[in-house]
Amino acid sequence: MEAISTGSKCKSQGFTQPAISDKEVERLSDLARQARGDIIEMTTLAGSGHPGGSLSSVDLFTTIWSYANVTPATVNSPNRDRVVVSHGHTAAGVYAALGRMGYFNPIEVIKGFRCEGSKFEGHPDLHTPGVEWVCGNLGQGLSASCGFALASRLTRTPYHVFCIMGDGEQQKGQITEARRFASKYALSNLTAVIDCNGLQAMGSVDKTMPQNLAAEWSTAGWNVAFVDGHDFRQIYEALYSAYHDDRGPTVILAHTVMGKGVSFIEDRYEFHGQPLTEPERDAALAELGLLRRQANCNSVTEPLPENAAQTIESLVRIGNPRDYDCPTDYRSAFGNALEDIAVENPNIPMAIFDCDLSASVKTQAFGKVRPEGMFQCGIQEHSTASIAGAVSKCGVLSFFADFGVFGIDETYNQHRMNDINNTSLKLICTHCGLDVGEDGKTHQCIDYTGLASNLFGWKLIVPADANQTDRVIRYIASTPGRFLVALGRSKTPVAVNENNEPLFTGTYSFEYGRADWLRHGKDGVIVTMGGMATRALAAHDQLKEQGLNVGVMNLSSPLDLDKEAIAVATQTGLLVTYEDQHIRTGIGALIGTYLAESGIHCQFKRMGVTHYGHSCSPEKNYQLQGLDVDSLVMLVVQSHSST
Amino acid sequence: MEAISTGSKCKSQGFTQPAISDKEVERLSDLARQARGDIIEMTTLAGSGHPGGSLSSVDLFTTIWSYANVTPATVNSPNRDRVVVSHGHTAAGVYAALGRMGYFNPIEVIKGFRCEGSKFEGHPDLHTPGVEWVCGNLGQGLSASCGFALASRLTRTPYHVFCIMGDGEQQKGQITEARRFASKYALSNLTAVIDCNGLQAMGSVDKTMPQNLAAEWSTAGWNVAFVDGHDFRQIYEALYSAYHDDRGPTVILAHTVMGKGVSFIEDRYEFHGQPLTEPERDAALAELGLLRRQANCNSVTEPLPENAAQTIESLVRIGNPRDYDCPTDYRSAFGNALEDIAVENPNIPMAIFDCDLSASVKTQAFGKVRPEGMFQCGIQEHSTASIAGAVSKCGVLSFFADFGVFGIDETYNQHRMNDINNTSLKLICTHCGLDVGEDGKTHQCIDYTGLASNLFGWKLIVPADANQTDRVIRYIASTPGRFLVALGRSKTPVAVNENNEPLFTGTYSFEYGRADWLRHGKDGVIVTMGGMATRALAAHDQLKEQGLNVGVMNLSSPLDLDKEAIAVATQTGLLVTYEDQHIRTGIGALIGTYLAESGIHCQFKRMGVTHYGHSCSPEKNYQLQGLDVDSLVMLVVQSHSST
Repeated sequence: MEAISTGSKCKSQGFTQPAISDKEVERLSDLARQARGDIIEMTTLAGSGHPGGSLSSVDLFTTIWSYANVTPATVNSPNRDRVVVSHGHTAAGVYAALGRMGYFNPIEVIKGFRCEGSKFEGHPDLHTPGVEWVCGNLGQGLSASCGFALASRLTRTPYHVFCIMGDGEQQKGQITEARRFASKYALSNLTAVIDCNGLQAMGSVDKTMPQNLAAEWSTAGWNVAFVDGHDFRQIYEALYSAYHDDRGPTVILAHTVMGKGVSFIEDRYEFHGQPLTEPERDAALAELGLLRRQANCNSVTEPLPENAAQTIESLVRIGNPRDYDCPTDYRSAFGNALEDIAVENPNIPMAIFDCDLSASVKTQAFGKVRPEGMFQCGIQEHSTASIAGAVSKCGVLSFFADFGVFGIDETYNQHRMNDINNTSLKLICTHCGLDVGEDGKTHQCIDYTGLASNLFGWKLIVPADANQTDRVIRYIASTPGRFLVALGRSKTPVAVNENNEPLFTGTYSFEYGRADWLRHGKDGVIVTMGGMATRALAAHDQLKEQGLNVGVMNLSSPLDLDKEAIAVATQTGLLVTYEDQHIRTGIGALIGTYLAESGIHCQFKRMGVTHYGHSCSPEKNYQLQGLDVDSLVMLVVQSHSST
Repeated sequence: MEAISTGSKCKSQGFTQPAISDKEVERLSDLARQARGDIIEMTTLAGSGHPGGSLSSVDLFTTIWSYANVTPATVNSPNRDRVVVSHGHTAAGVYAALGRMGYFNPIEVIKGFRCEGSKFEGHPDLHTPGVEWVCGNLGQGLSASCGFALASRLTRTPYHVFCIMGDGEQQKGQITEARRFASKYALSNLTAVIDCNGLQAMGSVDKTMPQNLAAEWSTAGWNVAFVDGHDFRQIYEALYSAYHDDRGPTVILAHTVMGKGVSFIEDRYEFHGQPLTEPERDAALAELGLLRRQANCNSVTEPLPENAAQTIESLVRIGNPRDYDCPTDYRSAFGNALEDIAVENPNIPMAIFDCDLSASVKTQAFGKVRPEGMFQCGIQEHSTASIAGAVSKCGVLSFFADFGVFGIDETYNQHRMNDINNTSLKLICTHCGLDVGEDGKTHQCIDYTGLASNLFGWKLIVPADANQTDRVIRYIASTPGRFLVALGRSKTPVAVNENNEPLFTGTYSFEYGRADWLRHGKDGVIVTMGGMATRALAAHDQLKEQGLNVGVMNLSSPLDLDKEAIAVATQTGLLVTYEDQHIRTGIGALIGTYLAESGIHCQFKRMGVTHYGHSCSPEKNYQLQGLDVDSLVMLVVQSHSST
C-alpha cells in the first residue's frame, strides 16, 4: 500500500575524498575568517540582524558548501546537492559564506543586507543563489529537507540534502515529526547538522528548555555523530561519513561557540540578535586581521531571478474525465481522478501524503496503483505540510489530502511558508464546512475561505459536485502553482440544468476564476459554492413555484472573483450569498467588499455560519444555523417583498 | 527571573489506599462491562463514533474516575482532580464511564449520543459534567493538562491532573513540547496515561509511524511505568504511585487491546471509527452478558449548563494608568502595564508565558516583580498556546505574549481550540504588520485581523498608541474572556487632538467596541487602526493644508464594528480604510461587507497590504506597498476630485 523504505541507490557527487589536506584546512580557515568579517560588517551597517549564531555556524556553512555537489554554476541543476539552513536568522552567515564562495559579490551583500531593493533579506529568500528554502519560522527546515531528500528518490535523481539547524530550534515539535518521517523512510541522503552553541535568544538552551539531543535523535532512529563545530577536519570527516553512509539519516551535533572568532562577544547570548556597535565592529575586524570594506548601506543591489523550481504539471496528461450520474461524495471523485492520473502518467513522479486518514480522504485507490508514491506520515500534520510543499518543487506532482481542520487550520503557518516558498503543492481538504456533521465543532472547517484569503499565492477552488471535482482535480494536476481544493464529506446530488442534464460533464471544462451559472434568473441571484450549490438549486425550484425566477451562481474560485458574472448578477437587484463558511470571512465578505468598493448598488444579503456548529447530522446543522433550503427561500421572498 | 522548578507541596485527596480489594476489582469489572455495553449501543444507534478506542480505554477511564478526587457533586470544585481525555474520539467511552458512575443517566447518553439538541457530542464538550477540556484535535490534551497542573501550584489549590491519550496521537509534535515543559517545571501532580492498543485509524501504529514511546518519555525526564491496561489492580497501583510521587511527572504506558471485550472486533483497526451493525451489536451485548436497553436515537436530552470556568479578572485592580508624552513602543507600554498589575495585585495568581522572546515582547519587568509567574517555554509555541489557555480557566490571570507570526499564525488552531474551550486567555501579539520591517515577510503578521475574524469568541483590540495600549492592557486584565491585542514594533508618536493634547490620557477609558474619533471632518473619513492611526493623522494635517477636512477614526475593536460611528462617517460621502493588514481580510473587508449589506451608499476605498512585504525599514515597506502618508493623501484628493 505504500512506499518501500529502502535507502536510495543513487550516488551523489560531493565529498569525494575521505579526508582533507592541511592546505584545505588553511583555505577553509581563511574563507571563514573573511566571512566572519563580512558578518560583522553587514549586521553593523544594517543596524540589525543576528551576528551570534552566524559566527557559530559559519565554519559549518563554508565546509558544507565547499564539498557538497553544488556550485554557483549548478544552483539550478536538478542533481545539485541541497543545503537548507533552517535557523534562517543566521542569514548574515549564509550570505557571507556564499558570497566568499563566489555565489555573488560579498561587497554587494554588505551594502544590501536588509535594505530596500536588495535581495539579501533578513531571512534568506529564494532570490539568493544557493538558497533552497525560506526559513525564518523555526522548526520547518528539516521537514523541507525530508521533502527534498524524498524527491531525489522519486525522480531517481542522485543528490544529498543537508539541513543545518540551531540548537534552540530543536524545541519545536515539528522537528520531532520530521525526524520520525526521515527515519521511517530511511532517507540516507539526508544529513542534519545542529549548531550546538548552547545559547538562544533569552540565554542558555539548557535553562530555557532542557533537552537531551543525542538521546532524542538516536531514539528516533538516526545515526548520531559529534564534532567540534570549529574544527574543519572533524566537520569534514563527519560529513563525509554521513554523505556516503546508506544506513539511514545521520545527525551531526556540532559543538560551537556563539560569536566565535570575536573574543569579546563569544558565548554572550545578547549577540543572538544584536549587531555590534561601530567601535565594536572595528575592534572585531582588527581581531580578525581584516580591513573594513568601503561600503554604504541602502545601496540597491542587482536584482536576481528567483531560484528555479522544477514543476512537472505541464507534462501531466489529464486522461478522460469521469461522469457521475448519481449522488457521489466529492472525495471519491477526487480519489478516482487521482487514480486515473497515476495510471495515465506512469512516468510522472507523484507523491501523495496522508496523515492516517487515507480511507476517509479516498487516496487508497491511488496507493494501489502507485504504492511507491504513497506516504503514510502518521498524525504529524505540521511536518507533512512542509514535506509535501518541498517535494512539489523538485519535479514531483505532490498532493496532501487531509480533513480541513487538520489540512489548513492546524497547518496554516506551514502553508503560509509554502506560499512564500513558491511551492506547487496541491492541498485537498475534505470534510469541510458543516457537512462533517456528527464529529462536531472541533472538526468543522468553517474557515478555509478565511484562511486562504490571507495568502497571496494560494488559489482556492470549491467544486459544486462530483463531476466538477473530477475536472478540478485534473486541472490542478496539470497546472503549476498552489491550489487548495475544499470538499464536503457527504454524497451530493449531481448539479443539473433545467432539463435535468448534468452541468459539469460533456464539453464542460474547468476554468479557474470563472463562476458557474447553474441557473439564470431575473429576480435575484444566489451566489454559493461547494455543497451548498445543490441546496441553492432546490431553493431555486421552490422559489419558481412561488413565481420568483432566481439565478444560482457557483463561485468555484472565490478568491478571484468573476467580476463580470457578479455585475450581471447585481443587475437583478438582489444578491444573496449562501455558504457554510464563517459569516465574517466567507464569500459574503469577499463579494460584499467588492460591491462596496466598486460602488455597485443592489440589495445584498449574506447567509453563513454564525456560531460553532453542533454534533448532529449535516442537515440538522444547516437548520440550526438557518442555512437550510427553507430558510434560503424565506430570505429571498422577504427580500423581494421589502423592495 | 522565572518560576522555581519544584514539585507542588500540595496534597491531593484521591487514591487513598495503596491497593484495591478483590471486591473493588469485581465492582470495577462490572462497571466496565456495563460501560462497554453502553459504548456498543450508543455508537450503533448513532450510526457513527469510535467504538474501538473507547473499548480499549474504558478500563482506564473507570479506574481513574473511581479513585480520583472528583465526583458528580464536585465537578465544579476548585480542588477537584482534573481528568483530560486527549483522544477525544473515545467520547463514547468517556460518556459510558461517567454515566455508569452517576454523572448523568446512561440511557440519556445512549439516546442522545451525536444527536441534535443533545450535549453528548461526537467529541466531549464542556456541557458534559466531568469533561475538563474539549479535545478532538489530537495532541493538545497534554498541554492543557500541563496548564491545569501549573494552575494548581499558582493558586495553591491541591489537585492532581490525569491526561489520557492514544498511542497514535503520540506522533504529534506538540506532545513532545508539552512533556518537556512538564519536566522542566517538575509537574509532579500530572500523570499521563497512554492507551497503547497498537492501532490507529489506518492500521498498526508501528507501521503508520514507528516510535519508541518509553524511550521518548524517559528521555524527556518523565518517570515511566508499564501496566496491562485491562488489569484493574495493575492500573490502580501504577496510578497510586504516580499520584503520590513527588519526583516529577509520570507516564503510564497501558498495554491494551482495541475493541476489548467483544471478541470479534478485538484488535481490528477498522473499528477505530466504525460502529457495529445491529446484528453485531446484539452479538456483542450477548457476549458481555447484557440486555439491550430500550432507547431510540434522536431524543433530546436535558440541556446541561457548561462546566464552570474560574475566572479571576473581576477581582483585578487596574492601578493607575501611565501617561506617555513622547514616542513609545506599544510593547513597552504593555510591559509596564503588566508590571503595574502584578504590583497592584499581589494576591492575584498570574502567569506570563514566553517563547524565548521576553526581551522583545517586554515581559521581563513583570518577571522581576513576579518571578514565580514567569514561564519560559522555549521555542514551543503550539504547546504554550494551549497551556496558557488552560491556565486561564483555573483562577489565574494568564497572558501569552509573542510575535504575531508565532502567537497567532503558527498557533491558529490552538487558539481555535482555546475558543471552543471558553478560555480567558490574554494573547498579546507584538511585531505585527509591516512594522517589523527588516525581518521580512516571514515575520510580518499581516493577517491577525483575518485570523481572529474566523473565531467567534475572541475579541481583537488594536490600540493606536502607547497610552491607549496602557488602558487596553488594564481593561483586558480586569475583563473575563479571550482578547487578542495586536501591537506594532516601532516607537509610535502619541496620538493627540487638534490642540496637541494626548487623546488617550486623562479621563479617557477604553471601551470595547467603541471606535475612537481622532479627528472629525466633513470631507471624508479615514478608518484605521494601530500604528497606522498616527500616519492617518499626518495625512489629515497635509489634507487640511489642501483645504480638505478629513476625519480620522481609530477602529480599535475591528471585529465588533461601531456601527453608529461608521454611520456618521459615511455621511461625509467618503470612507477610506487604511491599514497594514491583508487587503482581502483586514478592516477594509469588515467595513466593506457591512456597507454593502446595510445598503449604505458612499464612496468607499481600501488601502492595505497587497503583496508580501520586503526586508527593509517599516517606512520603506509602507512606501513599497503604497501605504505611506503621501499615498493616503493622494487617494483622498483623487477621490474628491472624482466626485
